[in-house]
Amino acid sequence: MHKTPSGSSLGPGGLDLTQTFFKPINHAAPPSPTKRHTKISVIGTGNVGMAIAQTILTQDFVEELALVDAKADKLRGEMLDLQHAAAFLPRTKILASVDYAVTAGSDLCIVTAGARQIAGESRLNLLQRNLSLFKAIIPPLVKYSPDCILLIVANPVDILTYVAWKLSGLPSNRVIGSGTNLDSSRFRFLLADHLDVNAQDVQAYIVGEHGDSSVALWSSISVGGVPILSFLEKQQIAYEKETLESIHKEVVDSAYEVISLKGYTSWAIGYSAANLARSIIRDQRKIHPVSVLAKGFYGIDGGDVFLSLPAQLGRGGVLGVTNIHLNQEESHRLRNSAKTILEVQSQLGI
Amino acid sequence: MHKTPSGSSLGPGGLDLTQTFFKPINHAAPPSPTKRHTKISVIGTGNVGMAIAQTILTQDFVEELALVDAKADKLRGEMLDLQHAAAFLPRTKILASVDYAVTAGSDLCIVTAGARQIAGESRLNLLQRNLSLFKAIIPPLVKYSPDCILLIVANPVDILTYVAWKLSGLPSNRVIGSGTNLDSSRFRFLLADHLDVNAQDVQAYIVGEHGDSSVALWSSISVGGVPILSFLEKQQIAYEKETLESIHKEVVDSAYEVISLKGYTSWAIGYSAANLARSIIRDQRKIHPVSVLAKGFYGIDGGDVFLSLPAQLGRGGVLGVTNIHLNQEESHRLRNSAKTILEVQSQLGI
Amino acid sequence: MHKTPSGSSLGPGGLDLTQTFFKPINHAAPPSPTKRHTKISVIGTGNVGMAIAQTILTQDFVEELALVDAKADKLRGEMLDLQHAAAFLPRTKILASVDYAVTAGSDLCIVTAGARQIAGESRLNLLQRNLSLFKAIIPPLVKYSPDCILLIVANPVDILTYVAWKLSGLPSNRVIGSGTNLDSSRFRFLLADHLDVNAQDVQAYIVGEHGDSSVALWSSISVGGVPILSFLEKQQIAYEKETLESIHKEVVDSAYEVISLKGYTSWAIGYSAANLARSIIRDQRKIHPVSVLAKGFYGIDGGDVFLSLPAQLGRGGVLGVTNIHLNQEESHRLRNSAKTILEVQSQLGI
Amino acid sequence: MHKTPSGSSLGPGGLDLTQTFFKPINHAAPPSPTKRHTKISVIGTGNVGMAIAQTILTQDFVEELALVDAKADKLRGEMLDLQHAAAFLPRTKILASVDYAVTAGSDLCIVTAGARQIAGESRLNLLQRNLSLFKAIIPPLVKYSPDCILLIVANPVDILTYVAWKLSGLPSNRVIGSGTNLDSSRFRFLLADHLDVNAQDVQAYIVGEHGDSSVALWSSISVGGVPILSFLEKQQIAYEKETLESIHKEVVDSAYEVISLKGYTSWAIGYSAANLARSIIRDQRKIHPVSVLAKGFYGIDGGDVFLSLPAQLGRGGVLGVTNIHLNQEESHRLRNSAKTILEVQSQLGI
Repeated sequence: MHKTPSGSSLGPGGLDLTQTFFKPINHAAPPSPTKRHTKISVIGTGNVGMAIAQTILTQDFVEELALVDAKADKLRGEMLDLQHAAAFLPRTKILASVDYAVTAGSDLCIVTAGARQIAGESRLNLLQRNLSLFKAIIPPLVKYSPDCILLIVANPVDILTYVAWKLSGLPSNRVIGSGTNLDSSRFRFLLADHLDVNAQDVQAYIVGEHGDSSVALWSSISVGGVPILSFLEKQQIAYEKETLESIHKEVVDSAYEVISLKGYTSWAIGYSAANLARSIIRDQRKIHPVSVLAKGFYGIDGGDVFLSLPAQLGRGGVLGVTNIHLNQEESHRLRNSAKTILEVQSQLGI
Repeated sequence: MHKTPSGSSLGPGGLDLTQTFFKPINHAAPPSPTKRHTKISVIGTGNVGMAIAQTILTQDFVEELALVDAKADKLRGEMLDLQHAAAFLPRTKILASVDYAVTAGSDLCIVTAGARQIAGESRLNLLQRNLSLFKAIIPPLVKYSPDCILLIVANPVDILTYVAWKLSGLPSNRVIGSGTNLDSSRFRFLLADHLDVNAQDVQAYIVGEHGDSSVALWSSISVGGVPILSFLEKQQIAYEKETLESIHKEVVDSAYEVISLKGYTSWAIGYSAANLARSIIRDQRKIHPVSVLAKGFYGIDGGDVFLSLPAQLGRGGVLGVTNIHLNQEESHRLRNSAKTILEVQSQLGI
Repeated sequence: MHKTPSGSSLGPGGLDLTQTFFKPINHAAPPSPTKRHTKISVIGTGNVGMAIAQTILTQDFVEELALVDAKADKLRGEMLDLQHAAAFLPRTKILASVDYAVTAGSDLCIVTAGARQIAGESRLNLLQRNLSLFKAIIPPLVKYSPDCILLIVANPVDILTYVAWKLSGLPSNRVIGSGTNLDSSRFRFLLADHLDVNAQDVQAYIVGEHGDSSVALWSSISVGGVPILSFLEKQQIAYEKETLESIHKEVVDSAYEVISLKGYTSWAIGYSAANLARSIIRDQRKIHPVSVLAKGFYGIDGGDVFLSLPAQLGRGGVLGVTNIHLNQEESHRLRNSAKTILEVQSQLGI
Repeated sequence: MHKTPSGSSLGPGGLDLTQTFFKPINHAAPPSPTKRHTKISVIGTGNVGMAIAQTILTQDFVEELALVDAKADKLRGEMLDLQHAAAFLPRTKILASVDYAVTAGSDLCIVTAGARQIAGESRLNLLQRNLSLFKAIIPPLVKYSPDCILLIVANPVDILTYVAWKLSGLPSNRVIGSGTNLDSSRFRFLLADHLDVNAQDVQAYIVGEHGDSSVALWSSISVGGVPILSFLEKQQIAYEKETLESIHKEVVDSAYEVISLKGYTSWAIGYSAANLARSIIRDQRKIHPVSVLAKGFYGIDGGDVFLSLPAQLGRGGVLGVTNIHLNQEESHRLRNSAKTILEVQSQLGI
């Protein structure tokens, strides 16, 4: 009898219609093994993981979605809750299991699992706990999907992306951290909201560490094709460096603000990760500020460090890094960002 | 200076670019007042309200989305979290306030607020508390949006839809309860999953009370145009009435199951309500099993009672109820469903 | 230097930015060869082929679209016209060539090429000419995409689908004719328009030959889950068999009507074929009335004949045929439909 | 009896189910007159008009679409061909008539009708003929939809947009020409294709006259946030002014090329106009290079002239013009573009 991953069946009577409802045609042959589904796995079904899963489902660009979590009850509840919407959605197969075998053959694995900081815990101690967690997550993912791309959406994202890369043994173009993709969206929202334009008409990047040392690239912001800094200069509009810094600060603070208000962030990171997933899966070759192996760019040296740079994403993962021109201060800050991360990383012993 | 509901501005420097960045053209005139946005308000930003809001946002069919909740912090956190995704979404204006004035001019108001049952509390007592809650919600909604349609997504949905109708003074076609729209989707998922077909190819309704007395319309189920009951008869497939009942029971139980597993339901009801909202706002004239004023249908009399019937929805709200043919048992059950609701209702004193 | 199929370059100066604009990251490796695009090829860039290509492009479910036509100028004009819309569309790679090599690795090949009837030409003569045409089209398609599914959208569709099957050597589940998928949509539109409901709420099939002998399955029509024939009986609404026949006739005539009015049909067949393409490519497992190898169904015997039956489509092509129950007259007509086709086919000598 | 604009009915028997199939609920009231559909009218059902209509239909952002053409047969054929796709599309009401009354209450009217140049005809003579045509089109459009926005997609677009503005008596923000929106898309495609990036990551405008005197704004091109000109300078990449000019020339020539290859342009202008329609109808406040009343911008004076500038579009039509900074040569060219148009315009006698 046909059994679905959800274990549903037509009740105790065991009425099985599949065999009689459809009949195969003559001279048919099974589909070629090379024809396969597009599949995404989401590891961790907390607020972030589920916001990502639901956004991907609504945007409808994969045929199969697998969820993994250590908590079997929560996991099954989330799977059923998504499956119950089947009649409202194009068909996506939704699977869930505590066993990583359910992720087999994924094109993309999105890791949202991460330990939360305990009151009084040092940052290094938290990292050590997350390192342990990743040692249990990354190897089975790569075992079941050796050709997958890893997208890390857990904090501190830059170091954990490095950790995932080391643990996975994958080439660097197939390990990506969500990085400052969301910070950049917040930045664009603040600018668009102020100018009353569509945020999609604002080009603006925040790069570097996803965190307090992130770098706003003021010199490359443009709105509808108008570079803002030179616009201000030509309009002879007086602006203070502090003004720009206060906008950047508002971006950096916004995650903290949302967390203090609702307890966690979910929707925006859900859209952000789904946005990256679509660029990768549909091979859109779009440029996103995401955490990639940054060694050798903009004078960053001293070791293998991941931080966000404007990278082109597609089916092959990271296709390249944009050769953007930073002004002196921007590139100085970026190198400092790298240094900060490398110092922490060196204490990890990986 | 241009101020958004989120209160964002370009920092302490108060740099205001709006005036200089865009300039109006000559001979321009303000847009006609009859040209206005499509707007939906969601009352209640709990798991259900936010799943609805986020699904509507992703499916992109309104220009303005307003959120109302009594908890100002939670409300602002949710609004910011949605706004931060602006760069990943077509432009929808997102507002939020504890003041109902923010809902002014809504085309559709979705009420998800509802008190939760306290351990040991009688059902009637819970209802009385929800009645009080609705007395604070419905009148201001109607005051600010006298032309709106009300969609009630709070339990017990049939009685609360009746309550909303009475409190609103709106014509009955403009007050709708989410009813068994989700139950029907779960029903379709279970059948589709078993037959390995697309749930969108399964026509199947659950009508009546959203709850234990709901009625599965076995006589009108069809899959890809094949009526299932007559298919089984013609195939001489033996099936027991208990088998069918066990499937219906699985549907009824599934909400309880999800709640027991993850603590609440959210995603499926989010898709369900967004699905109804789209039919209404986009005037799709689709047929949905939703809670409507049922007096006079299928022998239901004895009072004004709301329960789910297959209703056609559009910009005018409920456009009509399908004149479906029920077999004797089905119409008997439906009238019993009505009686059950009416009895509780009579104790409410409204 | 990077050269696109369109042959575009940055002008005579030969300015090549690709190498300097992006730089690869360290430790990167090329993407796995099993990660490949979803690709559709459309053969024939007449009104039908282009309506299909443009609808697929707008609906955005493939990464690569290849066009083939014998007329090099027309072909290049159509390709450029689609490519110029790049900024308004998600990224789809658009290729075109008179050489079938451009179709290599297609998941689906849609054949719209077909000779038009010359005044005074016998139907058989036309068929012989189309047979010659298909001998030049089908083998190279299968050579370059041995794993593809063939979708035939040329008339007479049932016989040409048989021809394509024979010429291709593919298993029968991978050769499909557009058949009565569009007739069924017209049928659903007429019913929906009359009842003022959404056509997506109407289930109604026309099966059999795509042409004058097609069969309307009145016994399985339902609207919003209400079977129409039994509804009429129970309502004691008098209706004449001639009334139903006149509706069917309106469907059969509608293609002729559009051709007489605008000279050809394009938009509806474009949506119809794109609808089938989506079900196949996205593995939606939806049921469509399409032309499949019908031998052995509903008493059809006497030879390998393709005609439209409600078939479930997915990545594997035809997954099965719905075991629908026809009344005596319907199955009689269906067998006659088969006989008509087989007679013509036998004269083809293939 | 319910009659649709297509005049379809359920055959000669005149079977009318509408009254019995749906029944209204008690206490219902008709929808408020302020709740109305979003409606677009397309004037002219040639290749351009139909490509626009079909793209708008597929992208699904209006509830009603009306077509007008002087050729009744062609018009009805196109309407039926779109209607027959109803089952594959969300519900859009499609109307068509030779009578402008069918356009009543439109939010947006897209005028694609225009006389074609006769061999040997002077440009001025062609313009005079188009002026006559517009005298028959614009006044009835404004009579039936006094609140509408006019979008002109006929050539020479800048002068005809001016003509439409004068004939309509509408404020200037409600009369827009498609202008260089498509030229800019072609420009972005050529740059994106060369760099192998997503065209949506390229910001690049062509402004001024839609025609040979159009102006490419090299100084504001950026790719993924990287300004191209300064990138080249900083990379010390030698480039010749002629190289840039040759790219601009390729854009200008591409319309001619497509016309010489396939006889007309359709798909790209269809997407371009649908893109503008969406920005307006959904109030997206996006910036597009479109033909607007340019007097007073960038030193353009000497009369009321329409030409393309980066304008923000929304429900109110033109919301403002971006205060972009042109270099000397760019603004010189723009003023020349204006002068060229004004000279022709002055001969029109309007």
